[in-house]
Amino acid sequence: MAVYTQLGAETLAEIIGEFDVGTLISAKGIAEGVSNSNWLIETEGADGTVTLFILTMYEQRTDLDDLPFFLGLLDYLAGHGCPVPRTIHDRENRPFRFHDGKALALIEFLPGVSVTHPTPAQAHAVGAALAQIHLGAAGFPGKRVNGLGLSDWRALANECGAAGLASIDPGLADLVERELSLLEQHWPHDLPHSVIHADLFPDNVLMLGDKVSGLIDFYFACTDITAYDVAVTHAAWCFSSDGASFDPALSRALLQGYEELRPLSENERTALPILGRGASIRFLMTRAYDWMNTPADAMVTRKDPMAFARRLEFYADPVNAVIFK
Amino acid sequence: MAVYTQLGAETLAEIIGEFDVGTLISAKGIAEGVSNSNWLIETEGADGTVTLFILTMYEQRTDLDDLPFFLGLLDYLAGHGCPVPRTIHDRENRPFRFHDGKALALIEFLPGVSVTHPTPAQAHAVGAALAQIHLGAAGFPGKRVNGLGLSDWRALANECGAAGLASIDPGLADLVERELSLLEQHWPHDLPHSVIHADLFPDNVLMLGDKVSGLIDFYFACTDITAYDVAVTHAAWCFSSDGASFDPALSRALLQGYEELRPLSENERTALPILGRGASIRFLMTRAYDWMNTPADAMVTRKDPMAFARRLEFYADPVNAVIFK
Repeated sequence: MAVYTQLGAETLAEIIGEFDVGTLISAKGIAEGVSNSNWLIETEGADGTVTLFILTMYEQRTDLDDLPFFLGLLDYLAGHGCPVPRTIHDRENRPFRFHDGKALALIEFLPGVSVTHPTPAQAHAVGAALAQIHLGAAGFPGKRVNGLGLSDWRALANECGAAGLASIDPGLADLVERELSLLEQHWPHDLPHSVIHADLFPDNVLMLGDKVSGLIDFYFACTDITAYDVAVTHAAWCFSSDGASFDPALSRALLQGYEELRPLSENERTALPILGRGASIRFLMTRAYDWMNTPADAMVTRKDPMAFARRLEFYADPVNAVIFK
Repeated sequence: MAVYTQLGAETLAEIIGEFDVGTLISAKGIAEGVSNSNWLIETEGADGTVTLFILTMYEQRTDLDDLPFFLGLLDYLAGHGCPVPRTIHDRENRPFRFHDGKALALIEFLPGVSVTHPTPAQAHAVGAALAQIHLGAAGFPGKRVNGLGLSDWRALANECGAAGLASIDPGLADLVERELSLLEQHWPHDLPHSVIHADLFPDNVLMLGDKVSGLIDFYFACTDITAYDVAVTHAAWCFSSDGASFDPALSRALLQGYEELRPLSENERTALPILGRGASIRFLMTRAYDWMNTPADAMVTRKDPMAFARRLEFYADPVNAVIFK
């Protein structure tokens, strides 16, 4: 949520000069990205055409070994008709460069805004866009292990500790322990795998009206259970942000939009409740960890872990399995 | 340096709809403004023309009574040929609106980037642009008392306290006391007054090459000694950022650029060293106050107050008065 590195105009102009995109005419640090610095860049071509780009500088939290996967995936998906921004390669055709030891990428700017209260028509479009990337990435050669999978949720729980979790909510340590044991026993490892986005919250979807104009922030993308991505997206789109209320119309629309392009198998459908529990635990654990490691008076907003404890309860209640039938 | 208020796409579209600027197609929170939230807004007109704007939401630190001055000044200066962004009025011709009790203004977007290592040609252009606003604002009817004038420096020093200042640097409390007493006795109240920008640091100047494309952030603008603004700009542009080294070529270029449009009177020239001491104390005091009131581990960068103690020493040394002759 910040620009971690200050780059002066001279430096920015020099960096942009390494790409065949015209002359830098404006650069604004943008308040996006937890582990990157981002600038909205405006350039002017020889013919006077003005174009926008996002310049991203990868700070400590991004593993450089993953960049070819992330940036290559964007190019591959864009080349296969998916609404994702392309990576602009530099004059030597490199997808990223270095400045002062930090990697930098120039990314296509896509129009669109992130909705906070989606309509069913918008959820439908998001479901379809998710299926598009699952199908579109089929031939992508890159592989990346999910850095926030089942064993990582357990590791985060250990780092928080029972007392830490109890400091967030008295019942949380028990809930997490019970749930992790259950997931470790019953996680459906045998379902189809593919590239997944793994973090398709509304703020990672750009929309123009009811249309998806861009899926962004692929920095959690990895190779994992395809239907798990459906569950993550479901948890992200079909509840009030505090997790207290579920919207069946959004749920129906999202799944319908998805299945119009990629119908779920019987096994996938049956697994959605447990995948939803896994998705809930994933965000519950990262939020709990961040909660405990962010001072209450820090300038970043801490996100309430309990919003995902509530989603977890929803997916765990057998009564609700009907929504996935 | 942050977006303090989150506005969803629906809200932003509704807000932009109140202006005759086309349809919202993109909005990015930008990392500018200490007391405001800012978004870079892209709209599309009926003919397909894409235009950029800055949407500013005024948070607690802006006094609403001052907004007609700030926004009216932008319009007035733009109308008098100065490189400043216009305020876009809403459909009812209001320069600002309210959303959830907070004031919002839509401001013209100007291209350009802020330099960090200015050249003499750039300093020359900045001097000329400063003179342009001093002259251009001559007929502007608005008045605003400088909220960071001499008496406020004293008040800030009292709030910091001698022990607080000493915690920054052992000699700082004595330096501030000695300097404030001197300024209170010798401040040149009888010099010409006008609208001044009062904060024309490089990050408030947008440049395209050697040309000034925009002066921005007029939220310290007020009615005060015209030559004091020259001194502020001099202190802001002619030193290394730590204040340790003075660049005579930048100083000559800045003053020459200014005087090509508005020659300084003999009295103004003679007063520049003391005005430079005042400008140094102004930023020294606000930085000292912020330093003491910002935790060392906060996510904002604390600016070193001593960078202006060093400028103060420079202006106070009679040997250096020659640069203003």
